[in-house]
Parts: sequence; C-alpha cells; structure tokens
Amino acid sequence: MEVMTLTVNHPRPKLTVAADSPFPYSGGSLLSVADLTLAEVTSILDRTSALESEDPLARAHRLAKRKIALLFYESSTRTRTSFELAAKALGADTTLVSSLSSSIEKGESLKDTGLTLRALGAEAIILRHPNSGAPWLLERVTLLPVLNAGDGMHEHPSQALLDLRTMLAHLRPGETRVNEQSLDGVTVTIVGDIRHSRVARSNMLLLPRLGARVVLCGPSALLPEVAAQAGPGIEIERDFARALNASNVVMMLRIQAERLAGLQLDLKEYIRDYQLTAERLAAGVPDAWVMHPGPIVRGLELTDAVADGPRSLILEQVSNGVAIRMALLERALGCGTSERHGATT
Amino acid sequence: MEVMTLTVNHPRPKLTVAADSPFPYSGGSLLSVADLTLAEVTSILDRTSALESEDPLARAHRLAKRKIALLFYESSTRTRTSFELAAKALGADTTLVSSLSSSIEKGESLKDTGLTLRALGAEAIILRHPNSGAPWLLERVTLLPVLNAGDGMHEHPSQALLDLRTMLAHLRPGETRVNEQSLDGVTVTIVGDIRHSRVARSNMLLLPRLGARVVLCGPSALLPEVAAQAGPGIEIERDFARALNASNVVMMLRIQAERLAGLQLDLKEYIRDYQLTAERLAAGVPDAWVMHPGPIVRGLELTDAVADGPRSLILEQVSNGVAIRMALLERALGCGTSERHGATT
Amino acid sequence: MEVMTLTVNHPRPKLTVAADSPFPYSGGSLLSVADLTLAEVTSILDRTSALESEDPLARAHRLAKRKIALLFYESSTRTRTSFELAAKALGADTTLVSSLSSSIEKGESLKDTGLTLRALGAEAIILRHPNSGAPWLLERVTLLPVLNAGDGMHEHPSQALLDLRTMLAHLRPGETRVNEQSLDGVTVTIVGDIRHSRVARSNMLLLPRLGARVVLCGPSALLPEVAAQAGPGIEIERDFARALNASNVVMMLRIQAERLAGLQLDLKEYIRDYQLTAERLAAGVPDAWVMHPGPIVRGLELTDAVADGPRSLILEQVSNGVAIRMALLERALGCGTSERHGATT
Repeated sequence: MEVMTLTVNHPRPKLTVAADSPFPYSGGSLLSVADLTLAEVTSILDRTSALESEDPLARAHRLAKRKIALLFYESSTRTRTSFELAAKALGADTTLVSSLSSSIEKGESLKDTGLTLRALGAEAIILRHPNSGAPWLLERVTLLPVLNAGDGMHEHPSQALLDLRTMLAHLRPGETRVNEQSLDGVTVTIVGDIRHSRVARSNMLLLPRLGARVVLCGPSALLPEVAAQAGPGIEIERDFARALNASNVVMMLRIQAERLAGLQLDLKEYIRDYQLTAERLAAGVPDAWVMHPGPIVRGLELTDAVADGPRSLILEQVSNGVAIRMALLERALGCGTSERHGATT
Repeated sequence: MEVMTLTVNHPRPKLTVAADSPFPYSGGSLLSVADLTLAEVTSILDRTSALESEDPLARAHRLAKRKIALLFYESSTRTRTSFELAAKALGADTTLVSSLSSSIEKGESLKDTGLTLRALGAEAIILRHPNSGAPWLLERVTLLPVLNAGDGMHEHPSQALLDLRTMLAHLRPGETRVNEQSLDGVTVTIVGDIRHSRVARSNMLLLPRLGARVVLCGPSALLPEVAAQAGPGIEIERDFARALNASNVVMMLRIQAERLAGLQLDLKEYIRDYQLTAERLAAGVPDAWVMHPGPIVRGLELTDAVADGPRSLILEQVSNGVAIRMALLERALGCGTSERHGATT
Repeated sequence: MEVMTLTVNHPRPKLTVAADSPFPYSGGSLLSVADLTLAEVTSILDRTSALESEDPLARAHRLAKRKIALLFYESSTRTRTSFELAAKALGADTTLVSSLSSSIEKGESLKDTGLTLRALGAEAIILRHPNSGAPWLLERVTLLPVLNAGDGMHEHPSQALLDLRTMLAHLRPGETRVNEQSLDGVTVTIVGDIRHSRVARSNMLLLPRLGARVVLCGPSALLPEVAAQAGPGIEIERDFARALNASNVVMMLRIQAERLAGLQLDLKEYIRDYQLTAERLAAGVPDAWVMHPGPIVRGLELTDAVADGPRSLILEQVSNGVAIRMALLERALGCGTSERHGATT
C-alpha cells in the first residue's frame, strides 16, 4: 500500500454543470459532507425521494449504459452492494475492482489505477480506501466525480446523508427541505468507537449544521477528549445513562475488533458500561430511536432485543442507503461530464 | 462462523401467491425437494421448457430490474454461475456477496446479512452455506424467497430437479408431467461419497417418490449402513459390479478431498473398487446413463473414456441447471412479493 | 494447477462464418496475432472505429443477451475490466470465473471448466492463464471462440492490436487500412523484461509484418540473445542510449517483481541503465512516443515525468483496449455460432 502525504484541503478542480442537470451546483463528487451546502443536501434528499418512487423500468433509463467503477481497497457488503444496486437500478454498467484480484497487487498506485479506470471509460469512481484523503487524490488526478465510500478513519459522507434521511423521516415526517433549524432541539448521541469511526466524523460534520446537538459517549480509549473540538454543537458525556437520558437518537458504532489491538480495552468492561440493552433504553428515553451503521455485532455493542426492537432503524438505514446513492450517482453523472478531458497531474 | 442450533422443520411462514403467478402453490422458496408436491415439480418442469425455448430478448423482460442476491459462503463455479446467468437471462439485476470480500469477515451473522440484503432491495436470496439448515433460518428471518444452493451435507434441491430433468429426457422422452409412476422400473445407482453429499440426499428424497429404485454404492467409510433408512425405495449394494448390473442411471459423486481427512480412506483401493471405467460400464449395463454433479476429478471417480463417452450426460446436467434455475427464479419472484413487510425474528 | 503438454500448432477446428457476419474470415477466436491476416487486422480496426463512435444505446443491441464468460486464472485489472466493459457496452451478459472463488480450487481441469462454461451457455470465453498454449487447448475442447487474454509468457494478442491502433493514430493519422508497408521506416524499441513478456512477443509477431523494425533492449538476464531469432525485422541493441536514438516508439515493459526470483538482476543497476527518464528521452529522439502495457511501476522502469509527460500514450492504450475488445467480441460472436454442437475431445 502506498504511503500518501497529501493536503486534504487542496483547491478543488472546477467542474461545470451540464445545462440539463437537476442539481443546482457544480461538481459531481462527494468527498466530504462539509462540501455540501444545505441547499445541496435538500436537492439530494428531493432526488432521493423522486427516484425511490419512480417506476423501476423508467428509472433504468436515467443512467442507461453510463459506466461506473467501484474501487474497493477494503472489504464491504452493504456499502459496495448498495452503490452497485443503485447504479444498476439506474441502468448503468458497473465494474468492480477490489484489492483482492487486481493490479493493485502488482504495486500499481492509486493514481494510476484511477487514471486507468478513466481511460477504460469510467465516468465516476466510487472509492473505499484505508488512507484518509485518498478520494481527494483520486479526484485531483482523474478529474472524475469521485464518491467517497469511506476513507480510513476520516469520512463516509453518503452514510451521513442516509442517516440524516432516516432521522428526518421519524423526527420531522413530511419535511422535505433542510436548513439551519431543521434539527433544533434534537440530541443525537453517538456511542462507542468514535476514535476510528468515519461514520461518526461525517455525522459530526453534518448534524450540528442543521441545529442538532451531538453528544459523544464512550471510554477514553475510544473517545479522546479532543473529539469535542471537532466543531460547535459537539459535547462529550462519558456516563452512558446520563447521555441516554437526553437522547432523541442513539447511534451505536461497531466495535471494530481489527482496530483494537494495543488499545487496552477490556471488552467485558465495555459491555458492562456501554452496551445498549432494552433496560437501559427504557430507563433513559424509551422513545429514542436506535441507529447503527452496521455490520452489527450482537451481544457486544447492543443486544438482540434492541437490534430487533421497535425503536431500531437499522434496516431502514440500509434501505435509505440504496435510495440516497441513486441520487448521488445521478448527481455525479449529471454534471462535469463535459470536462472529462485534459486531466493532468 | 456462527454456530446455529435450529429446528429445521419449524413452521414455514405463509406466503400468498400473486394473482398472476403461473405457479399453483404458495411460497417461492426452494429449501428442500421434500417441500415440493409432484404437481409442483411438473409446473417447474413445464416452465423450464417454456423459458428455455423463449426468445432471449423477450425472456429478458420476465424479471426486468428485479433484484436477486447471491449469498455464497462456499466457493462454487457451476451453481453460482448457473443461477447468475439464469437471473440475467430473465433481466434481473444480481449482486454477489461472498465470504471472501464482505462484512461476513467482520463477524456479521447470517441473520443480519440476510436482513441487510432484504433492506438493500433483494427480492430473493440464493444461499450456499456450510451449515445444514441455514436456508431455513434465512427464510424465517427475512421472509424472502430463499433458494437453497447447497447447505452443508444436507440438501441441494435445484440439483435434484436438474438431475430429474436430465433423466426424464433420456428415459421418458416427450413426457412432460411427473407422477408416482413416472420412474417405475428405473434404477438409479449413486456411487461414492454419499456420506457428505447433499446431491445424493436431495436425489434420495425425490426419485423414490416418482417410483424409482435408488441403490447406494460405496465403502462404509463413505456410505454408512444407516443411509438406507433415509426412506422407502433406497437400498445399499456395496459390490460395484452387482450394483452396475441393475442400473439405468449411474450417478457418480466427487471424492471431496477436503472432507476426507480422518476418514481412513485409501484412494488407491477406492479407485480399484469404485472407479467407473469403460470396461466396468460395458460389463454391467452398457446402455446405462452416466451422471455426475461436477466438478469431476478425472482418474479418480471416473475415467476420461467415461466422462467424455457417449453415455455421459454430465454436460447436459449443467445446461439443464441454467434452465431449471430460470424457472425457480421466476417461481420465487412470481409469488410472495405482496408479503414482504413485517419480517420479525 | 494442472501440467499441460500440448502441441500449440495443432489443426484449428473449422468454424464457419454466419452469413451476416461483418468479418470476412472464419473463426471467431483470437489466440495469436500470427493467426490474423493483415486484411483481418484491417477489418478489426475498421469495426473498432465504427463501434467506438456508435451511440451507446444503439451499440447495446449488438450483442444483446449474448453470454460471454471471463475465465481468469491470474489477477488482472485492465484486461479483465476492459473486456468486461466492452462486453457490457454491446449488451452482452458476462460472468466472471476466477481461480480465487471457484471449482478451480477443487482441482477441476481447464478442459472441464471450459466444457462447463459452454454447457452453461457461454458463447465465447475470454481466458487468462499462466500456462502458454492454454487458449488453444480451451478452443479445441470447447469449439467456442476463445479470446486469449494472456497465456503464460507466450502471447497477449489483443494487447498487440490495441498497441497497433495507438501507434497508427499518431504515426499514420487518418489511415484506416494496414498492409505490408504501413509501418515502413518506423522503429519500435521494446525495453526491459522481454524474457517474460507476452506483450513483447505479440508485438514482435505483428509489427514486422507491417514493415516496422523492432529493436529489443535490456540486460541479458531479461533479454536472451535468442530473442532476435523470433522473426525477421527484429534486432537486439543492449545500449539504451543507442536504441533510443533511432526510435519512433519506445515501449517500456513492467519489471515483474514476482518473476525475478533467481534472475540475479540488480534493480539499482537496472534503473541506472534502463530507466526511461525525461533526460534520456530528450537526448535521444524527443519526438518518440512512449508506450507501456501497464500496470506501470513509477520510479522503476520509467519516471513520473515520462509517465505523465506529453509523449506518453499509456492511457490512450487503455482506452484503445476497450474499443478493440468490442470489435473482437463482435467478431467472436458474429461467426461460428452455428457450429456450437458436437464438441468432442
């Protein structure tokens, strides 16, 4: 795996909008939720609903025979499948390149893999990569729309959007536009391994902008004190019961066994202190919604009763993932296509 | 891999038939051949012939843009490819989730993977799993049609149906309906590793119901005495020559090297006693048909002369696999779709 | 992996041309560039241009619902993806069988995998295999059109065709027919690991027939003296500067780390003597074109300045790969289909 040193906040390439694009902004990439204005978020949510309710055979003409590459340097079920099914639902041809069976093994750099995919005809690239910032590099070298499907411990912006859609459906039913007050009075508590979580980071960047209060909860090994400085509207509460008491939404994160080596985390203590059980939920605010980006590990971060209980939105999140990603793919290919030549590095 | 303790014969969920379904029964799953009435087998065989002879472009509208998930916890060429090509031939979108590159690695349970696939929009799941009974669990938690593509050493029902279609074409040409007398007077000899074979088990459950006599043949390490008690119409004959003498169909099974550890089987002795050679075939009934579910290991369970000889139906079985699976997918998606909500676990 | 001993130059099966085939020759396979007449090369180049400029939605009807199997025994990004996208662009259904997740693991032979793919409905097979000659075996046993996507250290004919198209566009712009004089006066220098390169071999077989002079350049460990005897029009020049001086095209090859064990090659010396740098290029013929089949290893066989420089045609080669492969797939399926029965071995 190459080592990358890159400035994440480099100037973005200018991509112009196709005249008939339904999206009132330039640039089809989605690298960070921070790049989206709330007007853009509204557009995406609008298109999500429109595409979701469209007839499947009509929908299949939207991106008919357009070419979308999925470039996955880490394994994935739901994100990869979700993007793939979204692309196919719109009629696009997809091709999957994973690190298991590709030239990546032969030492090809991300830059060259990206340029190769562009030369192969890919009109957008969906990238999952273990290095934070990799999608910025990929967009810069390919000048293609890049959808960040998770970069290291950094961001997972489509996840934050699908999480937002899920919350809005239950907390603000019927509302289709978002603004700075949309989530006023809402407290979202994110619990667990915040340190390693790109899902947490993307939600922390998005939710406070809509007025939500974000409370982070977990032991210091998984939640460093500095996390509260990620932005306004973010607080730390280490006591799980106190955090639950004030929550409208409890977002549980997966304990990523593969990232715990050397963290000195006692799983038994973690379960004792932070596992979400039906009892804890009932003792806090019983009408809080439970979310989880998946895959869940039953009996660790949450119990069966919670995962399968009436307040769980976990599977709704998955469904919203396919819908949101249809809108993101349409957005990616609806603009910037006239600027596909002249990539330089 | 999770450990599952489940009662295989739990009550099946009730799925209602869509009004326009060509199938006169409820429930689109195929978990065991024992679940099928002979009228249902006839329906499947009818639809197989109809779909097989249909114009490919017309056929591609039958399941246009329907979503089918392939969930494979074991590697497979012919079964996976066969289902995949069948689904695409009917116009469906497919997505493959294999244990090599998915959240399965991260410890996600079969239950949660199934629920996730449903939430992603899958309308049917094709499952291969090393645990017997896994497809029952998957159907119960997802309430989706599940096609058992092999579960442990238990069943492989679509294989039994394609084997049946292959036999009928040669033993009862022109007949399109099956009943309790369809295979009267027919002896099918299954040879080799019956102990570990889900193919043998599904055939043993199906063929005697049509009047066939099933003879099992092999050394005791691969064929325990208790196998004859699997049902009526099943016998054991350990002498290969005697077994061959009475056979209309000889079904050779693959010696699964990966399952032989600790079985004390001497391969040289096995070949001496049970390899199907052209000489043995000629000395028995030279007009018997030779079948094998594949992949074959030439020089072990059978010789080149037999595999490639005029009595071999091995490749016809493969072709029938694609055709049968088109009918099974149409059956799966032609019914039960109105009941997709409310899965509980 | 099975050991194969086969005569590469066995008699080719006779395949007849469909009446409406745009290709004026019999046989849809492409095993070696040596099998193609220059008239056939011209046909392929013509169809490449026609298909490339066709409307994507119209193009998608050309091979609608035809079935193409990709059989890859070695990992690949660009060749596999390129064939896959080409097939999908023409509307075909594809299925990928790779050695990572298939019956190949269970010891199935290439012959049986090929026969199985045919029985599954595949109408053409694209094969990458570590053994030289494997595509000939596959064609012989399946009687299907086989496209050699790289066999051992032997040939990679579609690469030579895309390389040719790339050269012609820059050296002979506007010319659409090739003959024995097309590349008169052109010197193509192939640099690096010629010993292990099927790309070099296919180019060495094709380019001299069009009048080009081919110069091979590299240390003796990677370029044995005997290579010059591969055919007329081929020379060896071990001094890189002298070789560069006379070049119109410099084709750099990847140093395949996985094949260097035991070769006694000092990479530092190799870089000192044979790395293509901007300085070396400027000191030789600055208007020479730089090509590379990829994946490139920056800092080894060439520098960033060359790979990304104005004379690099590397990404154009990739784009031409998709286009050429559309034509090859159309050619494969446009003929020979009436002869699909009766394969014997």
